[in-house]
Amino acid sequence: MSKFWSPIVHQLTPYVPGEQPKINDLIKLNTNENPYGPSPKALTAIEIETGNSLRLYSDPTSERLVRSIAQYYQLKPKQVFVGNGSDEVLAHTFQALFQHGKPLLFPDITYSFYPVYCKLYNITAETVRLNKNLEIDVNDYQRPNSGIIFPNPNAPTGHGIGVDAIEALLKKNTDSAVVIDEAYIDFGGTSAVTLIDRYPNLLVIQTLSKSRSLAGLRVGFALGNEALIAGLTRVKDSFNSYPLSSIAISGACAAITDKAHFEYTRKRIISARALLTTQLNALGFNIIPSQANFLFVTHPEHDAADLASQLRVKNIIVRYFNKPRIDQYLRITIGTDDECKTLVSALKNIVNG
Amino acid sequence: MSKFWSPIVHQLTPYVPGEQPKINDLIKLNTNENPYGPSPKALTAIEIETGNSLRLYSDPTSERLVRSIAQYYQLKPKQVFVGNGSDEVLAHTFQALFQHGKPLLFPDITYSFYPVYCKLYNITAETVRLNKNLEIDVNDYQRPNSGIIFPNPNAPTGHGIGVDAIEALLKKNTDSAVVIDEAYIDFGGTSAVTLIDRYPNLLVIQTLSKSRSLAGLRVGFALGNEALIAGLTRVKDSFNSYPLSSIAISGACAAITDKAHFEYTRKRIISARALLTTQLNALGFNIIPSQANFLFVTHPEHDAADLASQLRVKNIIVRYFNKPRIDQYLRITIGTDDECKTLVSALKNIVNG
Repeated sequence: MSKFWSPIVHQLTPYVPGEQPKINDLIKLNTNENPYGPSPKALTAIEIETGNSLRLYSDPTSERLVRSIAQYYQLKPKQVFVGNGSDEVLAHTFQALFQHGKPLLFPDITYSFYPVYCKLYNITAETVRLNKNLEIDVNDYQRPNSGIIFPNPNAPTGHGIGVDAIEALLKKNTDSAVVIDEAYIDFGGTSAVTLIDRYPNLLVIQTLSKSRSLAGLRVGFALGNEALIAGLTRVKDSFNSYPLSSIAISGACAAITDKAHFEYTRKRIISARALLTTQLNALGFNIIPSQANFLFVTHPEHDAADLASQLRVKNIIVRYFNKPRIDQYLRITIGTDDECKTLVSALKNIVNG
Repeated sequence: MSKFWSPIVHQLTPYVPGEQPKINDLIKLNTNENPYGPSPKALTAIEIETGNSLRLYSDPTSERLVRSIAQYYQLKPKQVFVGNGSDEVLAHTFQALFQHGKPLLFPDITYSFYPVYCKLYNITAETVRLNKNLEIDVNDYQRPNSGIIFPNPNAPTGHGIGVDAIEALLKKNTDSAVVIDEAYIDFGGTSAVTLIDRYPNLLVIQTLSKSRSLAGLRVGFALGNEALIAGLTRVKDSFNSYPLSSIAISGACAAITDKAHFEYTRKRIISARALLTTQLNALGFNIIPSQANFLFVTHPEHDAADLASQLRVKNIIVRYFNKPRIDQYLRITIGTDDECKTLVSALKNIVNG
C-alpha cells in the first residue's frame, strides 16, 4: 500500500500463474506447456536473427508475422493482430472492446485471468454458471452484456463446443463483441475463424505457447473483422510501439509456417491424451471429455488436493484450484508418453495404495 | 470507428514511432539506435537459451534479470521492476502512479508518448513550457499535480539537468511520484538512482534499447522505492504474467553484466558526438548541448524540413518533428564515425551548395 499508487492499484487482485520451479527431473504437468520442443525451423530463425541487427528496433507492425498468420488462416493482414503472448492480446481486448457499462459475461469456471482484467479496466463482470456437466451452454449467454468471452475448449475443464453453437450465439448477440479464446483449439477443437467474414463482432484469440511449443517466446494473436483489429491496434499503439522483439517475430513466423512439426506434435499429444484418459478411467477417475492438451479429472474416493500433494512428493506437479465446484478436480497437462506412463504408475500406487 | 470499440478507443491518438525502412545502404539516424551491436556475451546468452526449453513459460518474475540489475545499481531486487521495453514500463507507470485526478506535469517539448498514455488512462495532462533555451527548469514544476515525468536528458533536445536539480524538485514535491525517464542517461548524464533510498516517490526508468544496443530485444526497467515497485508489479501481474521471453531475460542479463562492451561503445558515441558538434557548428548549425546519443540542431539559414528531405535523397534519415517551437530543428542520432563523416559531407554540400 502506498499513497503514490493510483486508487485502482489498491483494488487489483493480480493473477497467479502456475509455478515454474527450477528443479531437475521434475515432471511438470501444471501449466499446459507442450512436452515437445518448438519447430527446429523456429530455433534456426531465432539464431539467424541473433546478431548486430538487434541494435535496431523491431518492426512495430510485425508485418512479416501478420502476413504469415493471415496466409495460414486465409485472412487479410488487416484481420490479424499480434501481441506479446495471448495474455497481452487479451488485456488489450478487454480495454478496447469491453468497456461499455453493461456487464461482461464469462463462465463461472474459466481462465482466471478474466476477472483480473476486469478490475484493471474497471469492467463489471457477470459470471455465467457452467451446466451440471461443467460445460458451456451458449443459451445461457442471452442477457444484456458489454461483451462475451470464453475459451474454447474451456480451461480448466478441457471441454469444447462446436462452431455451430458459437454461430448460434453470434446470431443472437449482435450488439457486443464475442471473443473466443482458442488457446487450446489445435488439440482437437474446430476454430471459429471460419465465421469471421460473416460476423463483424467475432474475435478469435490464439497463442503460440501451446500447440507451437513457444510459451517462452511470448507470442499471441487475434483474428477478426478489420474494425475490431483496428481498435486493438489503436490501444497497442497507445501502449507499446514494439511489443514483439525481432527474435519473437522471426521465430513465430517460422513456427507458423512449419506445418509438419505442428501436425506431428499435436497428433502425438492427442493420442497420448486418449491413452491417458483410458488409463485414468481404469483407476476410477472421472474425466471431462477433453479437446485440450490437458485433462480435468476427479476421483470419487480421493481428495484432489491430497492427490496433488502426493504427486508432488513423487516429483510430479499438476494444477489444483481451490475454488468452488472444482476443488475436487486436478488439471493434468498431457506430457510425453514417458511422462504419462510415470504419472499413471504414480497414481496407481496412490489410488490402490 | 466501430460500435464495438470501448468509448475510450475513439479518443486515442496513437504514438507514431520513427520509421524503420527496409532499404539497404541507408544511414539511419532517425530513432536513436546505437550504431554498434550489442554485447557479444548477450548474443551468446540468447543462442544458449534458443532450444527446446522455449516450450516452457519464461520466469514470470524475471528473477535473474532483476537480480543482475539490482546488483549493477547496488539496489535491492525489490527496488527493481522489468518490462517489455521501457515503453511498457512507462505505460504501467502511468496507470499505477498518475491517476489521482490532478494534472500530470511534463514538458511541452518531450517524449511524445506521454500525452498518448494520458489518453489511454484518462489522465489529465498539463505541459510545462521549456525555458527559452529549450531546457527544463525544475522551479516551473511547483504546482498542484498527480505526478511529474520528464526524460533526463530530455528528448528530443538532448539537454540534461543535474542530480542536484532533481533533488531540489523532490524536496518540494513530496505528495506525488516524480518519474525520471533516463533512456539516454548513459551517454553523459548522471543518474538520479542515488536518490532512491532517500526519496520514496522517485522512480527512475531506463532501457536496454540505447546504451546496451538492444532495441530489437525489448527490455526496459524501473528503479525506485519498494512500494512504488510493488504498485507496478500489481499492474503488471494484472496485465501479463510473462512480459519477458526467456531469451530477453538471458540476453538482458548478459548485456547488463558486460561492462567492458558498454563502456567501450558509449565512449565511442560520446567522442563522436563531440566531433560532430564541432563540425556542425562549423557549418553554421546551432546545437543544444547534448548528453544523449543524438543532437538537436537548427540552422539559421536553412529550413529544417527541407534539410531532412535533402538528406533523405542522399539516403540519410534524420527525425523531423512538425511541432510548435521545434519545427526548425532536426534530431540526428550519433552514428558510427563513418556515418557521421558521410552526414557532415552531405550537410556541407547542402548548406554550402
